[in-house]
Amino acid sequence: MPLYLRGTLELASQGVDSISSQRLADYLGLNPWLIRKDFSYFGDLGKRGVGYDSQTLVCRIKKVLRLDVTRSAVLVGVGRLGSALLEYGGFSRYGLQIVAAFDRDRTRVGGTIGGVRVEHVDGLGTVKTRSIDLGIIAVPQESAQEVVNTIVQAGVRGILSFSPRHIVTPRRVKVISIDIAMDLARLPYYLSGNRKQ
Amino acid sequence: MPLYLRGTLELASQGVDSISSQRLADYLGLNPWLIRKDFSYFGDLGKRGVGYDSQTLVCRIKKVLRLDVTRSAVLVGVGRLGSALLEYGGFSRYGLQIVAAFDRDRTRVGGTIGGVRVEHVDGLGTVKTRSIDLGIIAVPQESAQEVVNTIVQAGVRGILSFSPRHIVTPRRVKVISIDIAMDLARLPYYLSGNRKQ
Repeated sequence: MPLYLRGTLELASQGVDSISSQRLADYLGLNPWLIRKDFSYFGDLGKRGVGYDSQTLVCRIKKVLRLDVTRSAVLVGVGRLGSALLEYGGFSRYGLQIVAAFDRDRTRVGGTIGGVRVEHVDGLGTVKTRSIDLGIIAVPQESAQEVVNTIVQAGVRGILSFSPRHIVTPRRVKVISIDIAMDLARLPYYLSGNRKQ
Repeated sequence: MPLYLRGTLELASQGVDSISSQRLADYLGLNPWLIRKDFSYFGDLGKRGVGYDSQTLVCRIKKVLRLDVTRSAVLVGVGRLGSALLEYGGFSRYGLQIVAAFDRDRTRVGGTIGGVRVEHVDGLGTVKTRSIDLGIIAVPQESAQEVVNTIVQAGVRGILSFSPRHIVTPRRVKVISIDIAMDLARLPYYLSGNRKQ
């Protein structure tokens, strides 16, 4: 579903008003049959031979993914990666917004990156009063668990973690991990043939 | 399999010599039955009630994933994200090494980050003579496809892309995309109950 949303958003931004499952499938490199099956969940939305109205489709998928309301996120760790995230404009199209950023390094605290002022981690508990649902963890891996504990206590219920270390949370808190090294490590498997090493 | 490798490496680094499927399952939050099934591929490797020798297991999984030889990667785009990747030490445990980095910004060219000298993108074709299998794309999305075309022509056969835009490659070239915004957008679906918005 998130992938369908991305594809639909991109096609819509290219001026495509009506999206057929075939077209979306071609664009995303997927099987159109799979897309039709998944979209059948929406009921009678697409027109046979024409496709789905792209704006309606975006709304429906967003609703399924609960992206139909704006969600606020807190970022912890404003190193190179964290700064890149703050400057990255791509979250807004999913209705996501980083509204607070924290770091332990006092030389970073007080600065503003991507329109967000960096606060000191000692104030992380204030997240509780700010209606923040999501947390992004970009701290060194030895601090990750401690930071997670703090923001979970402050009411964060979904976490995106860049720490390669396994993170423990209460069952009600969902963690999605991005382990860049592991993703890169998946590639050699697909290398066909052999080069001289 | 990559996840098993990460878990095994972490447990081994904690001094665990013998890893049972149950222990690995607990560590990774998976079903031990699934792990036993996948590991049955290795044949008679584990000892009943004892588990797998962690070093042997690491070697076997690396072999399956073709990580048993060192792989070289080229990084294109040395902005905040690219710099973070160059400084990140986590690739080596998978036998991966970023050996070259390119950027179009002349103020960055010539500098050294994480031990790698930044070269100008005009020289990207030289990748061909350097036995580089993998490419990491951390350039602005409007340049991503062009950069991919160049490194594919230079012999790169696996690409890790941070561009949210869909990338086209010949079938023989595998692309793994990391779309951070999309990963964050997966979280709201799991938020149970409702907060005041």
